[in-house]
Amino acid sequence: MTIPDYARRRHVVRPDRLGALFGARSIAVVGASASSSWAGNLLRSLDLGGGVERLTFVHPQHDVLFGRPTVPSLRDLPEPADLAFVMVGPHRVEGVLADAAAAGVRNAVVLAAGYGETGEDGREQQRRLAELALELDITVMGPNTIGFINAPGGIAPWAVASSAVPLAGPVGAVFESGSMARATYEFAQAHGIGTSIWASVGNSAVLSSLDVLEYLVEDPGTRAIALFLETVREPARLFELGRRALEADKPVVVFKAGRSEAGKRSAMAHTGALATDDAVVDSAFRQAGIVRVESIEELISTVGLLGYTTRRPQGRRMGVVTSSGGGCNILADLAAVNDVELPPWREATVAALREHLPEFASVLNPLDTTGYGHARARPRPTKAEDDLMEIAVTDPGIDFLFTMMTPLPSEQPSDPAFIESRMKIVGDIVAAAPVPILLSSNTCRDVAEYPRRLLADNGLHLLPGADLAMASIGHMLRWTDQRAGLLAAPAPVDVPRLQARDSTVAAMGTWDEDEGRALLAEAGVPIVPARLVTTADEAADAAAKAGGPVALKICSRDVPHKSDVGGVALNVSGADAAARAFEDVVAACGAAVPDARLRGVLVSPMRAPGPELLVGITVDPTFGPVLAVGLGGVWVEVMEDSALRVLPVSATDVRDMLGELRGAALLRGARGTKPVDLDALSEVILTISRAALSLGGTLQTLEVNPLRISADGIECLDVLVTTEEEQS
Amino acid sequence: MTIPDYARRRHVVRPDRLGALFGARSIAVVGASASSSWAGNLLRSLDLGGGVERLTFVHPQHDVLFGRPTVPSLRDLPEPADLAFVMVGPHRVEGVLADAAAAGVRNAVVLAAGYGETGEDGREQQRRLAELALELDITVMGPNTIGFINAPGGIAPWAVASSAVPLAGPVGAVFESGSMARATYEFAQAHGIGTSIWASVGNSAVLSSLDVLEYLVEDPGTRAIALFLETVREPARLFELGRRALEADKPVVVFKAGRSEAGKRSAMAHTGALATDDAVVDSAFRQAGIVRVESIEELISTVGLLGYTTRRPQGRRMGVVTSSGGGCNILADLAAVNDVELPPWREATVAALREHLPEFASVLNPLDTTGYGHARARPRPTKAEDDLMEIAVTDPGIDFLFTMMTPLPSEQPSDPAFIESRMKIVGDIVAAAPVPILLSSNTCRDVAEYPRRLLADNGLHLLPGADLAMASIGHMLRWTDQRAGLLAAPAPVDVPRLQARDSTVAAMGTWDEDEGRALLAEAGVPIVPARLVTTADEAADAAAKAGGPVALKICSRDVPHKSDVGGVALNVSGADAAARAFEDVVAACGAAVPDARLRGVLVSPMRAPGPELLVGITVDPTFGPVLAVGLGGVWVEVMEDSALRVLPVSATDVRDMLGELRGAALLRGARGTKPVDLDALSEVILTISRAALSLGGTLQTLEVNPLRISADGIECLDVLVTTEEEQS
Repeated sequence: MTIPDYARRRHVVRPDRLGALFGARSIAVVGASASSSWAGNLLRSLDLGGGVERLTFVHPQHDVLFGRPTVPSLRDLPEPADLAFVMVGPHRVEGVLADAAAAGVRNAVVLAAGYGETGEDGREQQRRLAELALELDITVMGPNTIGFINAPGGIAPWAVASSAVPLAGPVGAVFESGSMARATYEFAQAHGIGTSIWASVGNSAVLSSLDVLEYLVEDPGTRAIALFLETVREPARLFELGRRALEADKPVVVFKAGRSEAGKRSAMAHTGALATDDAVVDSAFRQAGIVRVESIEELISTVGLLGYTTRRPQGRRMGVVTSSGGGCNILADLAAVNDVELPPWREATVAALREHLPEFASVLNPLDTTGYGHARARPRPTKAEDDLMEIAVTDPGIDFLFTMMTPLPSEQPSDPAFIESRMKIVGDIVAAAPVPILLSSNTCRDVAEYPRRLLADNGLHLLPGADLAMASIGHMLRWTDQRAGLLAAPAPVDVPRLQARDSTVAAMGTWDEDEGRALLAEAGVPIVPARLVTTADEAADAAAKAGGPVALKICSRDVPHKSDVGGVALNVSGADAAARAFEDVVAACGAAVPDARLRGVLVSPMRAPGPELLVGITVDPTFGPVLAVGLGGVWVEVMEDSALRVLPVSATDVRDMLGELRGAALLRGARGTKPVDLDALSEVILTISRAALSLGGTLQTLEVNPLRISADGIECLDVLVTTEEEQS
Repeated sequence: MTIPDYARRRHVVRPDRLGALFGARSIAVVGASASSSWAGNLLRSLDLGGGVERLTFVHPQHDVLFGRPTVPSLRDLPEPADLAFVMVGPHRVEGVLADAAAAGVRNAVVLAAGYGETGEDGREQQRRLAELALELDITVMGPNTIGFINAPGGIAPWAVASSAVPLAGPVGAVFESGSMARATYEFAQAHGIGTSIWASVGNSAVLSSLDVLEYLVEDPGTRAIALFLETVREPARLFELGRRALEADKPVVVFKAGRSEAGKRSAMAHTGALATDDAVVDSAFRQAGIVRVESIEELISTVGLLGYTTRRPQGRRMGVVTSSGGGCNILADLAAVNDVELPPWREATVAALREHLPEFASVLNPLDTTGYGHARARPRPTKAEDDLMEIAVTDPGIDFLFTMMTPLPSEQPSDPAFIESRMKIVGDIVAAAPVPILLSSNTCRDVAEYPRRLLADNGLHLLPGADLAMASIGHMLRWTDQRAGLLAAPAPVDVPRLQARDSTVAAMGTWDEDEGRALLAEAGVPIVPARLVTTADEAADAAAKAGGPVALKICSRDVPHKSDVGGVALNVSGADAAARAFEDVVAACGAAVPDARLRGVLVSPMRAPGPELLVGITVDPTFGPVLAVGLGGVWVEVMEDSALRVLPVSATDVRDMLGELRGAALLRGARGTKPVDLDALSEVILTISRAALSLGGTLQTLEVNPLRISADGIECLDVLVTTEEEQS
């Protein structure tokens, strides 16, 4: 589904306009009916929010609705409302917007479904809605949205069931699915994770998830941002906003379905998205500095950690203190899975801890406080884990301390003195600690009102169970590294578009190989020498001059897969053999593809077998040119072992790609092979990618297969280029 | 930490004895003190349980404790208690057990820590405790345990904080960690997953987790079993109980830490476990028909599903109905991850569904009911998802239906008529459905008392969020398949122990290769011909008779890695060359290992290069002989691609192993290679494993590397055997 260009819609979706939408203190509800559960839910949410100062119902047939005064039309409002919440059916929405404009209402939330998700008619109707909104200068959220919650402002035009006052906090969130916006909101609130703005953008006729993202990046009340995407509509803007979020030190965490073929089909059916390879999406998020997670729970746990942690660890060395031996083992496993280190405690720490532990205890990291703590009298109202945490956190060998806490009481006990004093001490320990202390519960349980207040009043945040906690910490540490790398990286250089080239390069479709070779050679890619011959005599001459065995390959744009038709002869020694091989490959080609336009046969010196890479550039329908690098042969074919990046990239990116290959050990010299010069290799691959980009919008694919890598050099042995007429 | 043999301890841990322990209606609490939080927690748990008829405190210095009558010693009880809950320190426990025996108390729970987990003294004290329990005929749970909960009986001697009456249900559980027993119990109860017996066995001086497992397998109130293991102490019994559980159709689900090196180190520190390779543990569980999970949450979600689902799906074709488009995409991804199929609806189903959907809706699987349902009047108190579920579940192309439900109210609404009637209808739909219907919430939220009753009263079980739900369903489907396979499989054949063999086979340490060859040949393993020669002339003769190029390898138990010292010559053609090669390899061997005992040189015909396997048998300290199979060369070395099984195995097991290899496609004929005869290959590998087993307790390793596999046959090219004196 398309959306008007950002330049066209900017005047209604820019951050100051969204500030007005989210800050609406007077709301007119248009078209509510007592028979729909939407209206009742909306009313209850607004009541719980408590920050709306004037609420008016608009209905042509009722004087009073839900016990509130009702006017027939927005035009009858005594003064303009800040926001119209529009609950009429799709065919009446345009009229309501016209009324809104006439009444000076600048913001509207449109609940109605039945637009872009329904087929061509619906898409047309959605386009009309978008044009109307632009023309009338109204900021329209939706259609097909449940609204938003501005928790600090107490403004909650949210048309699904609510049961509590919204908890304000540092997490901003935007969703492309209403039901998931609701489920995620409730999960977050149940875990004491408060929000700045929680928005469901629905079908995004005008206002998109990225527009809200831009608002949240600028919003001083938002410290971390959750995104739930069904599709990526504006990839360049995603990268730009990702960069701005990094500069603002605001982590962005995304959950996007569509990893599987079935998931992709489902998302395409619901959103009309294009079939982008999920591995490309993965890479794009990483390149934009955005954390990708795998579930709603992980989204909230991670964004909660990032939002509530004001001091982030400066490294991945974790100290652990917990009162559970079994928990220690689990945490050790989870640390390994999430690339977190568990250094042994320093000697001085061990000595200090030992004074507070039973004689028999092992002083390990993770540290088990043992059950002894429960039975011992303590000088202050703490548990053993608190006292040990206070000591352990001073260890100079750790970057942060993690504690899996004994469960907190779910309700205020009859004598709350102990727990309340204890939590104050824990709060003091955390505040005074030289490195961050991160706390988690044992399992993913809701945090009830009483423990939530206990935590919040003492400046503490509780992660939802060991499993999600460690996954979130892993994300935080990777993001911190990634952010540093991305901010330090030079901006990728723009590749100038090739202009006046010779006629062959201007050709569209599959290129003859010699044309592809010329493209690479001009760009500076090392390529195996080859002579294009058109007679057996020339082939014999070329072989004789080569002074060693040669390879012959037919050169024809009509036969891109030469070996499949017998169009390749390898290890040909001597002039006579070369002449015969010439006749053979030409005959084989003629037999297999009778109408093939044959430019001749390429004669090249044979190269010894050795490690090979495949370097391919294809064009993703969403993200444009994408570079794929894989080890040749069995690695790509059987293991599907390749690394991807959206272009353009830097040489550092390419080195990272090589490191990501599962067979990377082979490049570093495993199995007796000599190590490859990875810097030189990265430069060659970068140059290949730039050759592809120089084709601009005509590029379809450029594939070097194989790129031979050996101790004596790197050389492209074969190249296939296809282009198409540039789309305007 | 050792435990007395099952035969010795059986009289105190067999199921009828555990029945008496878990059914204790009169309990004496020994050594409680007001200063320890353990005692207060125990009392509160017992009160909440409500099923204990007589509770007495035992303390030498107090007449009254916690307001209850107190006697000085167990010997002063007016009649024997069913159970003594022993809270004294470790040095006083033995005296208390003697009192218990004298007083006719047959069961004891021992809370004290400071035993086997503390070092050699503690281990000795634990052994003494065990011997005393056996001698006095007392069933001792612990030491270092928090006790157990018998929810149907209302008996909860559970020494940690409790806040609600235990919910009874079909899940039995046993834990080797007290804190994890507690955390897991609370998570389960919060999700409406009730229990038969929930037990923490602590240090297992006598009563082990497997003893409780046996009880639960026999217990008619238990339908699914959760295990939390820190170590596997009795592997043969694990397999036997696994089999009995399969026969009883009771799924067993295990969570065991120790996947990572750090986790293994942590578990070894806490339990004294041996360093078993976690991949072996993985395989052992699978072979025993036990489901392994990766977190507490997954443990409970899975065992809850298995316990509460009385009808299990007969296949993996899932239909999905949900009111969330975004949820549809997530579920499609989760289905793919968990090997669940999503067939399209049949035509008749599509037609029937279409009548209840807005005109524009796409009728896909997963099915999005769209937001329209909320706004529409319905003839009965249902939501759109309920009505559509009722239709969709009749589709003959699915094995089960999955619904992610709109959130239920957390408290009784002021007008409960709608939700209560609705849930009754949902219950009726589920009960009448032709295939199972599985329900889940959107996210992993606690289920409050009101929705829990709504669900339970209508025979419904709610899975904890889409992510855990689909993981659990995946486990259920795999377990169902696995169970059928394991119950149908022939019992593995016992391999007779080799007895009187020639002197060389009796040798201990590394074997000479010709000895290993003889072992394999006698067992019936195809092996490349080889002649053992001791002079250059003999080598020349052997080469001449071979009629083609040969390989020469020195044969010496002192040089197991022949190529490393230049002890191998390949592709040697002709008698003269063979004679020279003989001198070369012997000289190289003499230079590298001067004292090597050299039996001679093996001369074999060269084989063409081709696919190779590595087949190795090693002895795991816990599980005994383990078979590993991997593709040769880069696959094993760089990819660490191998499959494992605890021995003995069947030919079917070996075929499964080959299928598990990531490079399995190569065996099936990828990249132009001919497919391998997998049945023949499995038989050869099975025979190799039997040759290894024939060495009985002397076996250390037997490694065939490579096993050459080609279209013209399967042949062992090299074998290395090591043995050691048998441990008594």
